[in-house]
Amino acid sequence: MRNISGPMTKRNPTPPFRRHSDKSSGGAGHPGDRPHGRDRGRGPRTGQKGGGDESFLYGFHAVIAALRNPARKPLRLLLNRSAEQELAAQGLSLGQNLSVEPEYLANDEIAAMLMPGAVHQGIALKTTTLPDLSVEEACEEVSTVIVLDQVTDPHNFGAILRSAAVFGAGALVTTDRNSPPLGGVLAKAASGGLEKVKIAKVTNLVRAIEELKELGFEVIGLDGEGEVSLPDFKTGPKVALVLGAEGAGLRRLTREHCDILARLPATGEMKSLNVSNAAAVALYELSRRKG
Amino acid sequence: MRNISGPMTKRNPTPPFRRHSDKSSGGAGHPGDRPHGRDRGRGPRTGQKGGGDESFLYGFHAVIAALRNPARKPLRLLLNRSAEQELAAQGLSLGQNLSVEPEYLANDEIAAMLMPGAVHQGIALKTTTLPDLSVEEACEEVSTVIVLDQVTDPHNFGAILRSAAVFGAGALVTTDRNSPPLGGVLAKAASGGLEKVKIAKVTNLVRAIEELKELGFEVIGLDGEGEVSLPDFKTGPKVALVLGAEGAGLRRLTREHCDILARLPATGEMKSLNVSNAAAVALYELSRRKG
Repeated sequence: MRNISGPMTKRNPTPPFRRHSDKSSGGAGHPGDRPHGRDRGRGPRTGQKGGGDESFLYGFHAVIAALRNPARKPLRLLLNRSAEQELAAQGLSLGQNLSVEPEYLANDEIAAMLMPGAVHQGIALKTTTLPDLSVEEACEEVSTVIVLDQVTDPHNFGAILRSAAVFGAGALVTTDRNSPPLGGVLAKAASGGLEKVKIAKVTNLVRAIEELKELGFEVIGLDGEGEVSLPDFKTGPKVALVLGAEGAGLRRLTREHCDILARLPATGEMKSLNVSNAAAVALYELSRRKG
Repeated sequence: MRNISGPMTKRNPTPPFRRHSDKSSGGAGHPGDRPHGRDRGRGPRTGQKGGGDESFLYGFHAVIAALRNPARKPLRLLLNRSAEQELAAQGLSLGQNLSVEPEYLANDEIAAMLMPGAVHQGIALKTTTLPDLSVEEACEEVSTVIVLDQVTDPHNFGAILRSAAVFGAGALVTTDRNSPPLGGVLAKAASGGLEKVKIAKVTNLVRAIEELKELGFEVIGLDGEGEVSLPDFKTGPKVALVLGAEGAGLRRLTREHCDILARLPATGEMKSLNVSNAAAVALYELSRRKG
């Protein structure tokens, strides 16, 4: 479990110079980091071979959302000519409302800058890191928060951000260690959701859960053995939904600090969903009852 | 995580002949097939490099479910000693209720037989292919059917099978072309769901949709621009839920042949879910109202 999240220095959100060692998006991990823990055998999904730079965001949805996020300052924009037209069609004109000098490259030149297998769609972007947020900063004015306990797969993590942005969960809390870098693979899977959901990375998840309680959140752990069925459980106005890793589920201490453990009602032969699918269903259920 | 499990004994499998060209699971594609269409750039997620055999199933949930499926005849079982104990703990004793001679291998030897990056957990299985089913055969005695139109990513396809098995959708219809092989990557993502859901692969999806209508299914296409919101739409007793590819969505002809197009209600800033998450939410919604 080598999770190098570096010394937690205060990162300057708008650095005056380009630090090539910058993590692109304010989280654990650095370019080239592999997923940790149970999922580390999944290397090829994140394409750990080769000299690519995981801190580049790529793909239209991810890059356009990042360009529109005022919390990011663009540093490098790689694109081909057809991607430029697509940007213009989205109202993003180079030289007008984009403050970065584009670098026109062919598709294979863009690919060479990224991790192998990156589906870049002719566009890639490096920016300053997102600001580090405390639990309180991320969760103010938010009524639904996701808490992820050791979800290490960047595809699952990204898909959860995407579902959060669809079903109105405004914040996500996870650990510095044993969470994937907020880089290219995760951002592509999030399809823009990385820019819509405020993220707090913490050292101690139990402490963060206690903080959420103090902020008025009801903390619900999702667990196949949960004592209540989520659809039958009447929640308060502010909910924090805690999800654990594929297979292992919630860690004992995490579980013990939840206000309640809830399960999703399985009507078929199997009981356990993929973690991003469980998150989507639970977020849908919570958003459905609100309105 | 190197789990070296003792000396290799018994390399000779039970079957009198070993057909290397076997498709493991009765569908389109053959070992080493790459996904087609939009997702083909995702090669590294399915690990198309190297000489591995995609027709092997691997991972505990996938292999145990396949061993318990009477429609499959096991041909080769590769495992380490700790996997053997796990099998026994699940009531599957080699020599008693398992008709295949195990081949004991170390983890890296098992890995060498599979596609790179396969998280095999010390166990892999090759079987006869699943029987080819017609739409009618797959869907009899089933009240919820999933129809997939060009979902090529094996992780998404597998996760959809898993959700189908959790929420009681008993059958899945898809096309022979532009669907992933029903092999190792897909089976691992399905976590046993590949054995629980009957699958029909067809040449012409529109014809299959018409057949489903004749069998009494109401055909609902899931579409972000759908005319009704799925939760508000009262369905009949038999529903076929049609989902399209990431990005492209349903093809025009597919869309035109649905009885109705329904959307999921997005309450947040973004509108579109990952296809496996959309399937999970829609299946949950359909199973919820059934009670």
